[in-house]
Amino acid sequence: MTVYLPDGKALDLPEGATAKDVARALGPAWEREAVGAIVNGELYDLLKPLPEGAKVRLLTEKDPEYQHLFRHTLAHVLAQAVKEHFREKGYDPERVKLGVGPVVEKGFYYDIDAPEPLSEEDLPALEERMRRILKRDLPLRRFVLSREEALARYRGKDPYKTELIEEIPEGEEISFYQQGEGEEGFTDLCRGPHVPSTGRIPPHFRLTHVAGAYFRGDERRPMLQRVYGVAFRTAEELKEYLWQLEEAKRRDHRRLGRELELFLLDPMVGKGLVLWLPRGNAIREELMAFMREEQVRRGYQLVTTPHIGSLELYKTSGHYPYYAESQFPPMRLEERGEGAPPEGERVLEEYLLKPMNCPHHIRIYAYRKRSYRELPLRLAEFGTVYRYEKPGELLGLTRVRGFTQDDAHLFCTPEQVKGEFLGVLDLVLKVFATLGLKEYRARIGTRDPKSGKYVGEEAKWALAERQIEEAAAEAGLQYTVEPGDAAFYGPKLDFVVKDALGREWQLGTIQVDYNLPERFGLSYVGKDGEEHRPVMLHRAPFGSLERFIGILIEHFAGDFPLWLAPEQVLVVPVSEKQEDYALLVAGRLKEAGLRAEADLRPERMQARIRDAELRKVPYVLVVGEKEKAEGTVSVRRRHRGNLGAMPLAAFLEGVLREYRERRLESVF
Amino acid sequence: MTVYLPDGKALDLPEGATAKDVARALGPAWEREAVGAIVNGELYDLLKPLPEGAKVRLLTEKDPEYQHLFRHTLAHVLAQAVKEHFREKGYDPERVKLGVGPVVEKGFYYDIDAPEPLSEEDLPALEERMRRILKRDLPLRRFVLSREEALARYRGKDPYKTELIEEIPEGEEISFYQQGEGEEGFTDLCRGPHVPSTGRIPPHFRLTHVAGAYFRGDERRPMLQRVYGVAFRTAEELKEYLWQLEEAKRRDHRRLGRELELFLLDPMVGKGLVLWLPRGNAIREELMAFMREEQVRRGYQLVTTPHIGSLELYKTSGHYPYYAESQFPPMRLEERGEGAPPEGERVLEEYLLKPMNCPHHIRIYAYRKRSYRELPLRLAEFGTVYRYEKPGELLGLTRVRGFTQDDAHLFCTPEQVKGEFLGVLDLVLKVFATLGLKEYRARIGTRDPKSGKYVGEEAKWALAERQIEEAAAEAGLQYTVEPGDAAFYGPKLDFVVKDALGREWQLGTIQVDYNLPERFGLSYVGKDGEEHRPVMLHRAPFGSLERFIGILIEHFAGDFPLWLAPEQVLVVPVSEKQEDYALLVAGRLKEAGLRAEADLRPERMQARIRDAELRKVPYVLVVGEKEKAEGTVSVRRRHRGNLGAMPLAAFLEGVLREYRERRLESVF
Repeated sequence: MTVYLPDGKALDLPEGATAKDVARALGPAWEREAVGAIVNGELYDLLKPLPEGAKVRLLTEKDPEYQHLFRHTLAHVLAQAVKEHFREKGYDPERVKLGVGPVVEKGFYYDIDAPEPLSEEDLPALEERMRRILKRDLPLRRFVLSREEALARYRGKDPYKTELIEEIPEGEEISFYQQGEGEEGFTDLCRGPHVPSTGRIPPHFRLTHVAGAYFRGDERRPMLQRVYGVAFRTAEELKEYLWQLEEAKRRDHRRLGRELELFLLDPMVGKGLVLWLPRGNAIREELMAFMREEQVRRGYQLVTTPHIGSLELYKTSGHYPYYAESQFPPMRLEERGEGAPPEGERVLEEYLLKPMNCPHHIRIYAYRKRSYRELPLRLAEFGTVYRYEKPGELLGLTRVRGFTQDDAHLFCTPEQVKGEFLGVLDLVLKVFATLGLKEYRARIGTRDPKSGKYVGEEAKWALAERQIEEAAAEAGLQYTVEPGDAAFYGPKLDFVVKDALGREWQLGTIQVDYNLPERFGLSYVGKDGEEHRPVMLHRAPFGSLERFIGILIEHFAGDFPLWLAPEQVLVVPVSEKQEDYALLVAGRLKEAGLRAEADLRPERMQARIRDAELRKVPYVLVVGEKEKAEGTVSVRRRHRGNLGAMPLAAFLEGVLREYRERRLESVF
Repeated sequence: MTVYLPDGKALDLPEGATAKDVARALGPAWEREAVGAIVNGELYDLLKPLPEGAKVRLLTEKDPEYQHLFRHTLAHVLAQAVKEHFREKGYDPERVKLGVGPVVEKGFYYDIDAPEPLSEEDLPALEERMRRILKRDLPLRRFVLSREEALARYRGKDPYKTELIEEIPEGEEISFYQQGEGEEGFTDLCRGPHVPSTGRIPPHFRLTHVAGAYFRGDERRPMLQRVYGVAFRTAEELKEYLWQLEEAKRRDHRRLGRELELFLLDPMVGKGLVLWLPRGNAIREELMAFMREEQVRRGYQLVTTPHIGSLELYKTSGHYPYYAESQFPPMRLEERGEGAPPEGERVLEEYLLKPMNCPHHIRIYAYRKRSYRELPLRLAEFGTVYRYEKPGELLGLTRVRGFTQDDAHLFCTPEQVKGEFLGVLDLVLKVFATLGLKEYRARIGTRDPKSGKYVGEEAKWALAERQIEEAAAEAGLQYTVEPGDAAFYGPKLDFVVKDALGREWQLGTIQVDYNLPERFGLSYVGKDGEEHRPVMLHRAPFGSLERFIGILIEHFAGDFPLWLAPEQVLVVPVSEKQEDYALLVAGRLKEAGLRAEADLRPERMQARIRDAELRKVPYVLVVGEKEKAEGTVSVRRRHRGNLGAMPLAAFLEGVLREYRERRLESVF
């Protein structure tokens, strides 16, 4: 057979040759270094026979595909270790039955049905066994069996593998990988690819956790145990990842929300419904005040609308019944009491808990004639909406059933889209800058030119898409255009933002809408005296306040800048003798609008300072006899330490500046 | 027969004697002055026979009961005038059929089924006829008929009177009153009492309007026309009332809400649901900012809770199903799709649109152990709640289905009730003072000592009632104690406030609650280390923001003080040449936080100033060449006129002071 190297050179090899044979043909350096190959664009290991005429590019440990190979082999090593583990416990290793064991992002898992449940405590011992298997450097061997032979291996012993084999399509190869021999080895039904031997797996892996998983994800099938692991090429990568994992746990907004008393999810109130405790509510209020201020400055008009609307409203908008699955069910007001008509004819009115604010804002636009002179009309509201999510999908603040959007709808002429986009981009970037979110990129979603699903005129789409791109360019954004990513009702732009942990979040979507103005028959009288259809923009820089605060809690690890800190300044008197002065200082700070208290508890001063640190209070003012006599305060800034004594007025001036300018760092 | 005078003196009179006979017995002055009597505590006229042994106190035109007498006779005079009116139109007066014609507050009405509908235009002519009947000074005569005789008068002619007679209980007298004779007179089935003759009716009355009214208030019965009138003893009282009526129309918040673009009630959104337009929303935000500021100063902690809650929550609180009639129906989340259980077993979760905020706040109190050191704990929220009202009961902003309460719940020890009451009284009085509501009185509702319906311990009630009274006295309030007016769950205090029109509104209820802490099993650990039950106070100084703003719109006649004015300052350039300067001035004002705009429309200056007056803008700054050159503004203050030119900085300083201090009057 003939295969071709990347430089186009042909290589003649015997029938059934593998990438290993290619490496051998290229000399001892390649034979030593090769771990796999890209064959006709597909990842191969060194063991699988090459097809006739294949284009082959050999891979070494330097290539990123190497990770896929060793992560896959590690899954087998894990299965082998689990079998050894139970053999040593006196079980027949055949009683360890196996589901699937694929590669996932950063690592791998294996679904296991073991004679005894595995717990997280078993993981270090399993890891140790795996390391020993790596050290034994067992070579991997690939072989193919007929369907009958394959089934014979598992039938009556392992129902999962039996089922997996039965479902391999007719005509497809049924391959196995074996590492080591007999009791010392392990063989598995597997498509590959793998590293050539267990010694080629870097030892930088970790088993992270065990979770339940239904066989084939079907909740009517048995539940297996899924053991997860992560694996990297270098110790540094593993360390970085484990740090991130640890850090993500440390920053987990659910944990911090509890510890810092920010919010409450109470099953008695309901699932996915957030109760903002006083400390969390302070953050929420600050974010709303910030957005309100920025919006008023930008000519938005603030409105307030009800949390329910007649079903008619949502039938007109098209949100009902098409999205009924993600809504709370309608409330039907029925005629009650004597003389009421028969059931089915009693419904007088029907209301829906609002899943979005747009129809209400549209009705405000539409309640009277509008002139082009009034456009752009920007209606903003912190609108709380409710959507149904399955209980299993709820997660802390990031997946909830009730959330407040910093919503606005901009009604404008088709020509004003660019100006409005620029205005919104400016606002979104102001939000990112204020919160220290420095890494972001924009994605513009446009029509798929081949699809016919879009509403609105061709010319308007073209105009809007051009205006959006121009606005993004003028704003100096790094952006990509993604054709086909527009909604059926209009093009959009959204941001992907990296938090302090390097995780990406989608934030700040701006959406053009041709659909709702049409459905509600909106119009304005143009300069020409004729009626025209306005364009509508939807935008919410924070998105949902709940989700956004969830992200911020993790981004700041609960360690908020002064303006967002639930408790901004704590005054700690050295002894009882300065209590009056501490109260006076706290009173002055409160009167100036700061969230400040004096801690007069009969605890040691150091204990009170430590408590303030646990609550992550940015400023602690210690006041003793000297401070009281001189009218000063001794300032301790979180993460900065002791800043020494200063006159109260000087502290107040500085701290107010830090607050009002919404600074990320101390002014002192 | 014998009757007794107020001084206890007995008076012997012939059988069947009336109060007129008593008056005659007392001499010519009484005979001339008497208009009626109080007989055994009941109002009698001079015509009805007295019972044996009656205690009789004669009434003159000086007594307040006189009003009832002449208002009642006026209803008859109205009916007579209507009959004359139709006779003159050529109808048989028998075709004018009559329902009921009672006395109501300030006046009377009569329900009429006439051969042609009456309109408001007919009222002056009817009034004129009535005046003529008064001048004729027709004496009234009372007579009694048997049921048969009585029915014979109306049967086949007037179905309403026939029915009314049929329903008079067996054994009760069927009395008639006749004024004048034949065509010149009028006779009516009537219990009385009346003045002795139509000449004793003061001419200070007015027919105000006509409305439809179902016979006996039953919508399945025919609709009659109800003609309303008001009547007073003096011309001054009538004039005052008519002014109030006119003024109430002028101030009607529904009319002003439309004209000033404050809010919207949109049938497509739903009935009784308020959409706050930008201008009305500004008032709402200002009131909330004011309350927020005052509450924070008073140590309240602000929370935010969802607008729905699980049905379980309201079953625990007792609000469901006991108040289900005044709530929106529950939302039932059902298992959907394939494999769902049969109907009736599908309900997974049930939610109620929250009719009040208490259960949510209670759950915030209860989510962790509380110590006496944390009490009083004051949780406040601008909580929007939803209650079901029948469509016919809805009225503008004052009766709605969704409203935002400036709600708070104060959790305290039984001993802290007085202190908390004093704090709330101080807040409520601050609200009244800030809004210029100068006339108010307080009502304290306590237990009815004879009733057993009250929850909570006797000793706690006594303690709370004493503390409330002490607090009211210490706050220097004018108050009344009304035994039996407490709710079953605790005593309360509320205010009755007079607005600028002299109308009374109930505002600022403070309610003690022993019930909910019990139902939710609330506790705190006391100084003694034991668990105790806290007391809960409900309070909302504004009550509902919607209703309160409705009242304020009428109180101020839409002419708000600066801090509440939707548009605070308008800058009007004299000509195009000062447009840049006008924008600069408006920009400076906006930057300082004021709601200010420049009016650059190509209209005449006087027209723009007039428009600002129609929109009731407090300050209009006119800027011409001189102002532009000198950096000044010419200030026009609503209701004050031209205040002359002043430097922009001086205006800004003053107007900001007026704004921040929430003054009712101009600082200039």
